[in-house]
Amino acid sequence: MKLKNNIKFDEKGLIPAIVQDADTGEVLMLGYMNEEALRRTLSGDEVWFYSRSRQELWHKGETSGNYIKVQSLWKDCEDNSILVKGKPTGPVCHTGNKTCFFQQITKQDVDA
Amino acid sequence: MKLKNNIKFDEKGLIPAIVQDADTGEVLMLGYMNEEALRRTLSGDEVWFYSRSRQELWHKGETSGNYIKVQSLWKDCEDNSILVKGKPTGPVCHTGNKTCFFQQITKQDVDA
Repeated sequence: MKLKNNIKFDEKGLIPAIVQDADTGEVLMLGYMNEEALRRTLSGDEVWFYSRSRQELWHKGETSGNYIKVQSLWKDCEDNSILVKGKPTGPVCHTGNKTCFFQQITKQDVDA
Repeated sequence: MKLKNNIKFDEKGLIPAIVQDADTGEVLMLGYMNEEALRRTLSGDEVWFYSRSRQELWHKGETSGNYIKVQSLWKDCEDNSILVKGKPTGPVCHTGNKTCFFQQITKQDVDA
């Protein structure tokens, strides 16, 4: 496989991929793709990642049943991060939350 | 400085931070914060990053004048990525685009 678009993977062969709900605009999660995960995401209908903890390809939703249907993919100006606009078929977060970003950080969390 | 909220920085001392327009929901960029950049972002009104290319603290907008005013910060369920909701005072991207994610990737970009 070769990508024509000069996608830059890091020294581990990964690129961060933000997932955003295509309808609501809500940012749902940040995952990492390797070349094969990106190829499958671009070739198919659903989001694939590379799981850094399990060190294997990860078809998002394969255990939970909550897949993310891809609408469009975008790369940033430096070709080293990806934005996926898609539609989740259920809660994206393993906690059952709609988004993984459900915990706010405030100034009180910093010790001066 | 100490963070109470178990923020997980990677082996380089960095954490990826997504910036989203708090009003429009548009995803604007992905940057990286070190502990000090996060502290400054939480303590002040504007977004700070750590520039991996220049290897220094980066007050976003310090050269362009296009700062990002912070509205709220969120961490994900695994404490290893951050979502900043904020308001940019001008185009976020160095190309002059409103967002860094202005280039679409399609199936045609994959060689089977």
